[in-house]
Amino acid sequence: MKIAVDAMGSDARPVPDVLGAVEAAREYDVEILLVGPQARIQQELDKIGNVPAGIHICNVTQEIAMNEHPANAVREKKDSSIVVGVQQVKQGNADAYVSMGHTGANLAAAIFHLQRIKGIHRPALGALFPTPKGPSLLIDVGANTDCKPEWLEQFAMMGQVYVRAVLGLEKPRVALLANGEEDIKGNQAVQEAHALLKQRAVRNEINFVGNMEGKDVPAHLADVIVADGFVGNIALKTAEGIAKMLNELIRSEIKSNPLSMLGGALAMPAFNKVKKILDYTEYGGAPLLGVNGVVIIGHGRSNHVAVKNAIRVAKRAVETNILETIRNGVAPRE
Amino acid sequence: MKIAVDAMGSDARPVPDVLGAVEAAREYDVEILLVGPQARIQQELDKIGNVPAGIHICNVTQEIAMNEHPANAVREKKDSSIVVGVQQVKQGNADAYVSMGHTGANLAAAIFHLQRIKGIHRPALGALFPTPKGPSLLIDVGANTDCKPEWLEQFAMMGQVYVRAVLGLEKPRVALLANGEEDIKGNQAVQEAHALLKQRAVRNEINFVGNMEGKDVPAHLADVIVADGFVGNIALKTAEGIAKMLNELIRSEIKSNPLSMLGGALAMPAFNKVKKILDYTEYGGAPLLGVNGVVIIGHGRSNHVAVKNAIRVAKRAVETNILETIRNGVAPRE
Repeated sequence: MKIAVDAMGSDARPVPDVLGAVEAAREYDVEILLVGPQARIQQELDKIGNVPAGIHICNVTQEIAMNEHPANAVREKKDSSIVVGVQQVKQGNADAYVSMGHTGANLAAAIFHLQRIKGIHRPALGALFPTPKGPSLLIDVGANTDCKPEWLEQFAMMGQVYVRAVLGLEKPRVALLANGEEDIKGNQAVQEAHALLKQRAVRNEINFVGNMEGKDVPAHLADVIVADGFVGNIALKTAEGIAKMLNELIRSEIKSNPLSMLGGALAMPAFNKVKKILDYTEYGGAPLLGVNGVVIIGHGRSNHVAVKNAIRVAKRAVETNILETIRNGVAPRE
Repeated sequence: MKIAVDAMGSDARPVPDVLGAVEAAREYDVEILLVGPQARIQQELDKIGNVPAGIHICNVTQEIAMNEHPANAVREKKDSSIVVGVQQVKQGNADAYVSMGHTGANLAAAIFHLQRIKGIHRPALGALFPTPKGPSLLIDVGANTDCKPEWLEQFAMMGQVYVRAVLGLEKPRVALLANGEEDIKGNQAVQEAHALLKQRAVRNEINFVGNMEGKDVPAHLADVIVADGFVGNIALKTAEGIAKMLNELIRSEIKSNPLSMLGGALAMPAFNKVKKILDYTEYGGAPLLGVNGVVIIGHGRSNHVAVKNAIRVAKRAVETNILETIRNGVAPRE
């Protein structure tokens, strides 16, 4: 199996991207196609040393910066790591594509070049949301803003396929994110999606557990949480913002007097364990589901462990054949 | 000034509701009309003792439970504390109404009996969101799910009026909650509301600071954050859920070994300060804006301090005449 990796994706590119790829090649028995400027990548590989045979370079001459307009950048920079990386999958040179780069540009490139799977209304971006009891897949977190009920229904079905394959859950619990638990809650689209998913549940096609409130997102009451990309993005980002704020606030209050500081030092292993439980790097990136190719997009601030885990997840998605499952199992019913 | 207080609102009713009302009467020079079963309230007042002269009781015989359907309950239980409480404002027996009870039933009763202010598309529920740098008003947090752009525009204008009056900010910063900071982000309604608010800003009618991402909600980049009630509810509840989860996780990890436990004990003042900074009880309830009356709805789990603060906020809203300001300043333009 060969996986194309955007070597110029992360904020600290290409260091974590290349190191993560090398470690993945060593650990997971995959070949890697590093997409980026040849000289810069080679320099990084020389630093690492002992590079496995399965590491290849695909040279490109352009780079898409974080502040560029996604669609324009993808249209104009045909020799960027993002466009060329996606095309490696399209052309059959790679089985999957992994990038820590510009989310919007990655979405645009993947949707434009790989195109939607036939019968899929809209590809969606999932994100594994860490909770103390394990991760939940929140889908969509930003690929689609105004969503029709049937799109949400498909997000649920694709999320189920992904979580089954990657987390190994046989009957993942699927919920709709809403403003209340009762069936009648939700905006118009969510209420209609609710009815569609209930029908799927009756046909035993999904383990639909109903509506879930925002307060229950960290309680792991579902393995797949479905939302439109506008709402999912706001829920995900708000959660990240609150966690960051609380962390900073506790640390600054602890530093405000010597006794608290001592206390904080003694409690550090506990803090670190909490940090590890909620560490997104463990889960390795967000899948773009519904395009003709395995695409995993990670955080810009990823370190090499996150890159390595994203490659592991991509490999697993290829091995478990999620594309075929989506092609055969998620297409709209007559 | 006389304020009607739902004596049967909070989860621990009527204890915190009655005590909070008595303390408010003592501290804020307001008369209170306690709405609830006379005997039960009198019993509570006797326990408290030394009851100020300005405390009155308005007897009712029915109660709306938390699990009742809002509109049905309000229609059927005409002698409940919620329906009678709202009517005290309508009939001019009270200047404002405060309740820690069933949010949906309070919304339904207030909108049905007090009705919308002329020119207001939809009343909206605001919630003061605590951050380390002070509170932001998130509006709407649940009164309206699918919102038109002009509704969002009015939520922004009403939020501005409220924050000016209650927090005393002259030029509050107003933002739209979105899936990115750029002007082009947002779902359809948010994008159109963005354009409307930009026009208002050009006319110097609002200090519109543009789109705000979920991650910046706790960063206090705006004093008023506008969302439809579906999105606002999910953002607010997700934030509450994450804060609760982190708090529990840190506490349980700290308890997992003796050194961490000692550390946790030493750092306790820091934890308590964090808790106080983020304490919703300080801010006293959520205003329902856009109806013909001052209505403040609080959390079911409110203690007497939260009830007292909600009464203080109601008093301030009456004194600063927010109804007239909304009537004269927020009506749609020709």
